[in-house]
Amino acid sequence: MGSPMCGCHRPCAMDVADEFTVGGRVKGEIVSRSQERNHLEVDDSFWMWLESPETPMHVAALAIFEPDGEPATVVAKRIVMAFRDRTDIASRFRSLLEKRRFPRRARRLGADDVEIDFHLRHKALPAPGGELELAQLISRLHSIQLDLRRPMWEVHVIEGLENNRFAVYIKVHHALINGVDAVRLLGRALATDRESGIPDPVWVMGRPSRIASVADGARVPVPRSSRVRLLAASVKAANALRKARRTDSPLVGPFVAPRSPLNTVVGPQRRVCTASIDLSRIKRLAKVSRTSVNDVVLASCSAALRRYLLDSEGLPDRPMIAGCPVSIAPQGASPDSSVGMMLANLATDVADPVDRLQAISRSVRAAKEHQATVPHGALVAYSILAMLPHTLRQLVPGAVERIPPMHNLIISNVPGPQQPLYLAGARMVGLYPLSLLFQGEALNITLVSQAGRMDFGFTACRSALPNVQRLARYLEDAVDELEAVVESGHSDGPDRRVRTARALSDDRR
Amino acid sequence: MGSPMCGCHRPCAMDVADEFTVGGRVKGEIVSRSQERNHLEVDDSFWMWLESPETPMHVAALAIFEPDGEPATVVAKRIVMAFRDRTDIASRFRSLLEKRRFPRRARRLGADDVEIDFHLRHKALPAPGGELELAQLISRLHSIQLDLRRPMWEVHVIEGLENNRFAVYIKVHHALINGVDAVRLLGRALATDRESGIPDPVWVMGRPSRIASVADGARVPVPRSSRVRLLAASVKAANALRKARRTDSPLVGPFVAPRSPLNTVVGPQRRVCTASIDLSRIKRLAKVSRTSVNDVVLASCSAALRRYLLDSEGLPDRPMIAGCPVSIAPQGASPDSSVGMMLANLATDVADPVDRLQAISRSVRAAKEHQATVPHGALVAYSILAMLPHTLRQLVPGAVERIPPMHNLIISNVPGPQQPLYLAGARMVGLYPLSLLFQGEALNITLVSQAGRMDFGFTACRSALPNVQRLARYLEDAVDELEAVVESGHSDGPDRRVRTARALSDDRR
Repeated sequence: MGSPMCGCHRPCAMDVADEFTVGGRVKGEIVSRSQERNHLEVDDSFWMWLESPETPMHVAALAIFEPDGEPATVVAKRIVMAFRDRTDIASRFRSLLEKRRFPRRARRLGADDVEIDFHLRHKALPAPGGELELAQLISRLHSIQLDLRRPMWEVHVIEGLENNRFAVYIKVHHALINGVDAVRLLGRALATDRESGIPDPVWVMGRPSRIASVADGARVPVPRSSRVRLLAASVKAANALRKARRTDSPLVGPFVAPRSPLNTVVGPQRRVCTASIDLSRIKRLAKVSRTSVNDVVLASCSAALRRYLLDSEGLPDRPMIAGCPVSIAPQGASPDSSVGMMLANLATDVADPVDRLQAISRSVRAAKEHQATVPHGALVAYSILAMLPHTLRQLVPGAVERIPPMHNLIISNVPGPQQPLYLAGARMVGLYPLSLLFQGEALNITLVSQAGRMDFGFTACRSALPNVQRLARYLEDAVDELEAVVESGHSDGPDRRVRTARALSDDRR
Repeated sequence: MGSPMCGCHRPCAMDVADEFTVGGRVKGEIVSRSQERNHLEVDDSFWMWLESPETPMHVAALAIFEPDGEPATVVAKRIVMAFRDRTDIASRFRSLLEKRRFPRRARRLGADDVEIDFHLRHKALPAPGGELELAQLISRLHSIQLDLRRPMWEVHVIEGLENNRFAVYIKVHHALINGVDAVRLLGRALATDRESGIPDPVWVMGRPSRIASVADGARVPVPRSSRVRLLAASVKAANALRKARRTDSPLVGPFVAPRSPLNTVVGPQRRVCTASIDLSRIKRLAKVSRTSVNDVVLASCSAALRRYLLDSEGLPDRPMIAGCPVSIAPQGASPDSSVGMMLANLATDVADPVDRLQAISRSVRAAKEHQATVPHGALVAYSILAMLPHTLRQLVPGAVERIPPMHNLIISNVPGPQQPLYLAGARMVGLYPLSLLFQGEALNITLVSQAGRMDFGFTACRSALPNVQRLARYLEDAVDELEAVVESGHSDGPDRRVRTARALSDDRR
């Protein structure tokens, strides 16, 4: 799955702008994109346009590192000192984007005009530096809007974590980079062995696609003449989805998501939490239940959500719907060059965990089959149309109550580098993606698979979900529960399996 | 001097609102002030009205504590744990004020609706926890706008300072409290002996004036019928000031301040720094030079500013003007119940430090004599009129360039508690006030006299004054320089004195 953290169609932000500046970069240069308007693409400035104090459009990653013996504070300090000298900043990280202006006009600052000690911060946790202290700091950092008058990125090196660890929190505006590119860039910025010293920081690196293992991002120009045909195809596809609402088809149509406590007005404060599951456990569950890794991930999220909402008696009667960003790239293109939104039925109304997993799996299969029947151009157009409710809710006061949710939340699965990675000799033991919220969707779950782990980042509106940390615990419990029922079902037959599941579910009511 | 940190006329914020709620407080109650409009006063909502992301209207204090032997981290933790349980929040700290609405409507939250762990934060400095690390953290905290949807205050307990110290940073919106009240409240919240345990936190305390040593704040109602007479008196007073511009009078008229690098567009990022001078040194300088403590303070600030602006070749030819908040309260009233703005000539065009001090002293004396001749009501009206340029610059885009500065910066002297103070057995060894900036004034200097020290807080716009930390060093140098020339002049006669001064000044050019 090639998918940004938020889940919308957009290309690598600075690629096009770079082409205009080759051979002649000047300070504060204006880069226009008007010549590129034949591309039917969501422009980078779109993300500036959606930005608000309540819903800032930045994405982030929290990486945890464990040195081999050396004190973490010493390693963190060494990294900060080395990074502070790296003022050879890549053009992407020197760019300013003007707010609310189409087409986007990027202004490129000179390297001397970027104050490195504004963007690179050295921080510490109070004792004992446990999960609570880290979650409080990161929740706070993730709530704060980036300064839009400066290049929109921050890197925080955080010492004082218990068990001799340190953390790096990287925050970048979505207009500068999407989730897939961000994780890829991070992968490049880290070493694959413990012996390597301090690598280049992310902000001196150019376009990730240039040396990425996948093919270079193929663009999908859409001639003006074919736009009418595209629109017709889109309407046809939308019509198929509309019909799905009236039948027993497992395909999820638009606007069938129920109202839920997640779909409320989003305030400016965030609360984030994290969970980590061994990838081998998920894989085994998928194999035994004859579903996919992604189905098991969705089922675990669904179980956690169901239990969380039952706690507060807020579970909707109808099944909740997740929006899952998926690659809709044509053959041979980079998987991140074209991203659409798949709607998955989370079957939160189903009490039995195995029935729930199977219902989710059927819904995902139906969505993929539907996607395969629709021409690529129509998928692109449909993906843009699917952003419309988000856009309206962001820009129109009171729209949260009036526009029904397209989906209840976004669950995004970002592929991560599979080999173990190191920073200044310290091994990365966690990589948690933290995403953005749209108005009317108070929760986002994004996950990265990395070196045998599935690391989950929960990003929530603090007012709407004051106890979001429970979701992380419930997710881990959900995997335990699935294992208990699926594996026992596997060995003891279906009857025993269902009984165990019912018992576990009833306990938690 | 009874003066808020920013320097504007306003009464204690919540006093009047409280009167409407005696005997019947309900959750989220609306408190209107319309019945109080006979008072010719700047309303609290005025501060909400001036609020912008570039110029948030919060004031703060940074207090440094030194435990007697016990590890600072342990004491800090104990304070956080004890404070976290104090949810018996005073009405002032449960109030929400609506933005841009006259008259102010305050909504009072129930104590259960205030999330204490949002307002009380436990923080740490990275090693080594020196001045640099503290300044970076406080600069960052002071840049961040308060969440206006919650009661507008934050208390940060910060561990990890070198020399076994910890810090408390308190940030409150000016609509809730002014500088004088804030320092008074802090004085009440601390113990006068090392043996006392953990006191009540500030947010459980009521109105400071109730148990303050000064007389209870007398209000100054102005009947509608006399407003015309007041306006006439104000115009007359303003006219006297206007005439002062054309003569050699040391009295500073309005709008004579030159343009300077301080008077530019203010951005959202702050850089703060601090300095501390023994009060006995300032007192001795005042005595020997036959000036006042306040004159010596202004002269030290002036010397620091002059040197700072000479560094960047930005010193104006004409003398810079400081706005100094002063009490204009009638006899018997609380000194903070009525605050006006005195304009002082900083004589930054004078190279000789002693001549500069004498010029400042003459200007301050003239301003005080002028104040004594003007009726109180006219002073109140004039103080409100004097806010007009600030207001226009805050609200009208582009006004910074068009409206000439009334003064180049505000220098505010807040009286502090004179006895040594303790928190959980740790002695307070520094109390630095940090203030707000208005659009078009990129620097504020506020000082508190406390237990034999003068503690200075410099609050600057990071873009306009990137090297503001130099000002703190230059201020300390300025006191050394004044001592060298005044004391040597005192013993060796005027000739020697002037030579020394010239030499020192030339060295620094």
